Order: sequence, then C-alpha cells, then structure tokens
Amino acid sequence: MFELISLKNGIDNVDGFFSGGISAGFKKDGALDVAFIRSEKECDVSAVFTTNKFQAAPIRHFNRYPKNFKTNFVLMNSKNANAITGQKGIDDIDFIFENIDSIELTNPIMSSTGVIGYPLDKEKIISAANRFDFSSKNSNNCSQAIMTTDSFAKELCLRVELDNGEYFHIAGICKGAGMINPAMATMLCFITTDANIPKNDMDELLSESVKESFNKISVDGDTSTNDTVLLLANGKKSAYDKTAFGEALKFITKNLSLMILKDGEGSNKVVAFEVNGAVNKQEASKAAKALSNSLLVKTALFGEDPNWGRIASTIGAAGTTCDEENLEIYYDSVLVYSKEHPVLDEQTEQKAAKVMKNESFKITCNLNMGDFSYTAYGCDLSYKYVEINADYRT
Amino acid sequence: MFELISLKNGIDNVDGFFSGGISAGFKKDGALDVAFIRSEKECDVSAVFTTNKFQAAPIRHFNRYPKNFKTNFVLMNSKNANAITGQKGIDDIDFIFENIDSIELTNPIMSSTGVIGYPLDKEKIISAANRFDFSSKNSNNCSQAIMTTDSFAKELCLRVELDNGEYFHIAGICKGAGMINPAMATMLCFITTDANIPKNDMDELLSESVKESFNKISVDGDTSTNDTVLLLANGKKSAYDKTAFGEALKFITKNLSLMILKDGEGSNKVVAFEVNGAVNKQEASKAAKALSNSLLVKTALFGEDPNWGRIASTIGAAGTTCDEENLEIYYDSVLVYSKEHPVLDEQTEQKAAKVMKNESFKITCNLNMGDFSYTAYGCDLSYKYVEINADYRT
Repeated sequence: MFELISLKNGIDNVDGFFSGGISAGFKKDGALDVAFIRSEKECDVSAVFTTNKFQAAPIRHFNRYPKNFKTNFVLMNSKNANAITGQKGIDDIDFIFENIDSIELTNPIMSSTGVIGYPLDKEKIISAANRFDFSSKNSNNCSQAIMTTDSFAKELCLRVELDNGEYFHIAGICKGAGMINPAMATMLCFITTDANIPKNDMDELLSESVKESFNKISVDGDTSTNDTVLLLANGKKSAYDKTAFGEALKFITKNLSLMILKDGEGSNKVVAFEVNGAVNKQEASKAAKALSNSLLVKTALFGEDPNWGRIASTIGAAGTTCDEENLEIYYDSVLVYSKEHPVLDEQTEQKAAKVMKNESFKITCNLNMGDFSYTAYGCDLSYKYVEINADYRT
Repeated sequence: MFELISLKNGIDNVDGFFSGGISAGFKKDGALDVAFIRSEKECDVSAVFTTNKFQAAPIRHFNRYPKNFKTNFVLMNSKNANAITGQKGIDDIDFIFENIDSIELTNPIMSSTGVIGYPLDKEKIISAANRFDFSSKNSNNCSQAIMTTDSFAKELCLRVELDNGEYFHIAGICKGAGMINPAMATMLCFITTDANIPKNDMDELLSESVKESFNKISVDGDTSTNDTVLLLANGKKSAYDKTAFGEALKFITKNLSLMILKDGEGSNKVVAFEVNGAVNKQEASKAAKALSNSLLVKTALFGEDPNWGRIASTIGAAGTTCDEENLEIYYDSVLVYSKEHPVLDEQTEQKAAKVMKNESFKITCNLNMGDFSYTAYGCDLSYKYVEINADYRT
C-alpha cells in the first residue's frame, strides 16, 4: 500500500530539480514568457508527442537524439510555436543552446507554444536564458511563462509515501486552453520525479496515463503541431514502487487535463460524456468523443438546455450501433430519455436543467447493445471562445 | 447542346405540380409551418437520406413503401422532427394521412424538421392539411413553411431548352442552416421535374449530384436524423436529355447547397477549401472537410485573420500526407505560404486580410504530394451561431 499526499508549489518539491521563468519581452507588460526546468543530475526522459503530421521544430529537434538519451535541461517559450519553420527552426534551437554559456547542458530539450510560421527571436531567448537563476526553485513562474490563452497556471505535486517508510515526489505543470482534442493538443506538460524509476516503466506508465487523461479531453477538437508530454526522472531518491508511481502519475495527468478543460477558452463547465453498452471499444470511444466535440452539444451546454435530442442525434451521426428501444440518457441521475419515458415532461426537464447549472456534471448514454464503455471529457462553447479565437494573434 | 434558363417562383413553373404552405400554429405570429407538394399525375421518386443511425419516423415511413413506388403527395412540417419517437412516430404519420379527406393520396410521403423527441401534434397538422388549397401554385409559401433557423427561403428553377426545340423544367426548394455537414444534414430538399426521365437515370443522377453538393458543405459538422433529398418526376413533358438533365440537377443542388451555407447560422462568409496534390482521393476529401469543420479555422475566418498556421495545422491534424517543403497555401490568388516564402510579410498579410473581407473566397492548399483534389465548402463561426444554438428550442 501507499499514500498520496498533495503538496503545493509543483516542481519545487522534487529533489534535484530547479525551475523558473522570466520575461524575454514576447508578452505584453513584462509577463513571463521563457522558462526552464533543470536537473542537477542527468535524467531519463519519456515523451509523448502530437499526432499532427506537421510536428514543430522542437519535437523534430528532440527526435534527433539517440534512443534512451539523458538530459539535464528543458527550455520553454510561449508566443511562438516554432512550427512549420523548416530546417531553420531546428538550426535556431541548436544556435540558442550553443549560446547559453552560463551552465553546462547535456542534450538540452526545447518546447514551444504560440503562433505557427514565424522564426524564433533567438537573441531575445538567449539573452533571457543567460539571465536565468539556474538554482532557483520557482515552479509557479515556470508554469506562468508557458501560458498562452490560459487564465491560470496549472501545477500539481504529490509526495508518494510507501509502506516501508520511504517516499518520492512527482510533480507536473502544464498549459493548454484551446486546441485541446482527444488526440492531444496545444498542450505542453512537464512531469518531474525523483523516484528511482526504471526507463521501461517510465515509457509504459506515461503512455497509459496519457491515454486515460489528455487523450480523453476536448476543447475544440483540434490537435496542434506542438503537443508534448515529458516525464523527467533523476532518481535522486532510492524509493520506487511501480503501482504507486502509476497511480500517482494517473492522478497528476488526469487532474492536470481536467484543469485544462476547466480553463477551456471561454468555457464555464466541464462535462463527462459516458457511453456504456457499446458493441465494441472503438464505437464507445467514437461516440463519447463525438459528443465532446459536437458544436450543437457544446452550445446546448452553454445554454443549459437539456435538449437530449442533440445527444442522441450526435451518437447516431457518429455511426454508433444503437436503437431507440434500448437507448437511455441521463443528466447525472436524471433520466431524460428511455423507451418508457420517450417524452421529456416539464418536471424532468426542470431537474435536468438544474443539473446543467453545475460547474461539472455527467451525461450518460446507455446504448444497451454490448459491454463496452468509454468516457470523454468536454466543455461548453461560449461567445468568449469565438472572441478569443477570432483574434488570437493580436 | 442545351440551354439552362433561370426562372423565378420555383415549383410553380413545373407542369402538373402544385404546392403551398399555411400556418398550423407551431411557429409564432402565424408564420407558415405546414406545407405540401402535389402532383396531378403519379410521380416517380428518388431519395437520398441521412446517414445518421437514428433515422426519423418520416424516413422509416418512406422506407416501408415497395421499391419503385409512385406517389402524388408530399406533406412537410417544421418545428418538430418526429425523430426518436418510436413506432408511434410512424403510426402518427399513417393517422395523419388517413385523415386528410379532401384529396385522394397515393403513397403519400411526409418530411419533418425541428426538435427531436416530441410526438407530432397530429390534430393540428390534419386540420391544417384539410385547409390546403391543393390547386395552388405557391412555391414561396411552401419553402417558407419548411424554414427553421433559416433567414431566407431557398428556391430555384430552370427551364432546360434542348436542341430540338423541346424543353422541360426542374425546380428545387430546400431548408437548412445549422447541422449541415459533409454527410448531409438537417436539410430538406425537394426537387420536382416535368421531364420525361427514366427512374434509373433519376437514381443515378440524384446520387451523383448530392455527392457534389450537399455532401460537400459544412456549417457545423453535425448530421441530423431527418436529412432528405427527394426528386419527384411526373413526366408531364415529353422532353428529356440525360446530359442536360444531369447538368441542370447539378446546378440546382450546387446552388441550393451554397444558399444553405450562406445562411449558415450566424455565418457571414462562404469559403471554398480546395485541397490539391493529395496522395489519394480519401486524403484530399478528409483534409478539405477537416478545414471546413475546424473551429479554429472558422473563428479565424470570422476574425478575418489570415492565420495560415491554422490551415496547415488542421491539415496535419487530419493525418494528411504532407510536408513543409511541398506545401503552398493561397487565399484566392495571394500566396501566404510556400517553402520560398515561409514567413508572412506585412504586405502579403494585408492582401490576404483584404481577400478575407469578401463574402466568399477560396483557400487553396497545394500539397504537391500526388494527383488528387477535393473542394469542400464552409462558413465562419460567429457569436451569432452560439446565440442561436444555445437556445434553439425556446
């Protein structure tokens, strides 16, 4: 057995990791926009990247390193994605790292978010990087610096206490508001741990936990060129337990992904779409993700209108095996449709509308056709989303 | 050779067809909401229906008729889709037709649009139907009565003049604003012709023309339970030519589908997304449709922001075979990205922004990877869309 203890100040708690963020002048009013994570000991790295065919320069730069390489440094910037910038985008990263002379770097990693198609301002980034205090522990500044349209910084840390009295830490920070979809998104997430975890376990557990978290959420169904989840382990503690680490990692990724959804551009509600009784796993997942991505469902959430017809229609449009006789739809515990109750009476409608006023709730669709389930997470679509995205670059 | 002459007043021009619309009291302020199309001679019928797994009662009612059945009557209503209403939904249609006693009906067809999950008010529809003037020619009332969130009635008519001096007519009316997606949508379209067209040609040409029109447009990527395109031919004229008819039908369906897009809920612009140089037809179509459905692309259109990065990213997210070296993106004739011009200079940006101020324009993506092309049509996403759909039922 083990215990998970929640700590404040993210990365700061993890032995041997340092982090911080400063302003290089990309954001207005001196807001933070360049950040780093450094480990005093070289780390193992596991990574999950975007499925977008246009992978940004930082990802292509990362992929040049040999398998199982170790690193001691991650540099991050916001406001410029360094995506679709050709070989120059990769060369720029090399140039930046060659010119950070205040510290020794081993296989340094870069990670960027922002607008596509513009070259990095190398000089500004180099000048900022040379002003870093590499022995600072300032996780909050680091997570602020990677924000784009995010309205709050996202960080979590757990101390994992094992039965034998030993413990280790695992901490995650992330950013991401729009462009979040079930196959990853403009979402950057950096997880650090001082656990003594083998590299094989890192790869296996990271892949599993991303599937159950970031890949289940959708703000707008788009998948960016830059999505990245990095797990860095420096083994500064001797403690490790695979089950405990797996649970802690799931807790971190699941809760960070829900924070992203809560911060979905202009969104007011986080909604779980649970599809049960599908004929196979694919159909369960396709139906749940269709619900979390449907414009008509998302606007009905915003309008707090328990219009279950849009739920049913979206499932049907996704090609799900289903029929009217077996379908049941719930808003939390309120049954709004079944064969026996095909028409929404006023009292039920009021109850369902009340559920929809909550900040988070669940819409359950029982297809009753098979044994497979999937839950996807989404949010509403508001005027604010349109406003933010009509005018992102300015 | 042949000539296409555009006529006003839709169905009214087609020999032997009658139509009209009245108020049954479903819409506010006595607006029209129940309509009919009648042919004095029994007609051949071809139909294309929604791919949604929950087909509405009117479609299931239609599909009970034997193959190659003939009809003389179509009844339409708005405000209630009669979808997910079980066997009762079909029985209600039978009951309605049994109680229209002022005219003899042969295999009558019903077609509905509106909210899902409520029983039809049979009595109101019957009472309205018995007040129809079955010898009226009032195509405009008919097309108004089927409107839901549409802001204008959509009708077109062509007189097709053949080389031998003979001619026939083909006319279409349709409705549809939201829920319009590349695989059909809450879209009803009724096409009538007095051409002497064989049933086989009707099926073949309708299927082709729907693929090139309604299946290429998207307002919000949703596909409704009720989508219907009907082609009714009464052979009142002796004239017919397959090529001429095919061209006329394509003209009607293409232009009606663009009217739907122009009337997309809260939309201000109609945009063609042309993808060229794909490795196969599937990828061309998938990429073009992804562009027309992307929230980030649609909001950038609304903001008139020539942010080509979102175009590229959306193509990449759709899994299209592509690379930065071969990609070219144009807004009309303005090249905004190519390997040689990877960065948008201010002058080009201004030119592209000017293109985006137009009511309609084209975004072209040359992938230069293969020989396949596809064009999809979409519109922008505005505050108005959110407003309309947050609160559709009230």
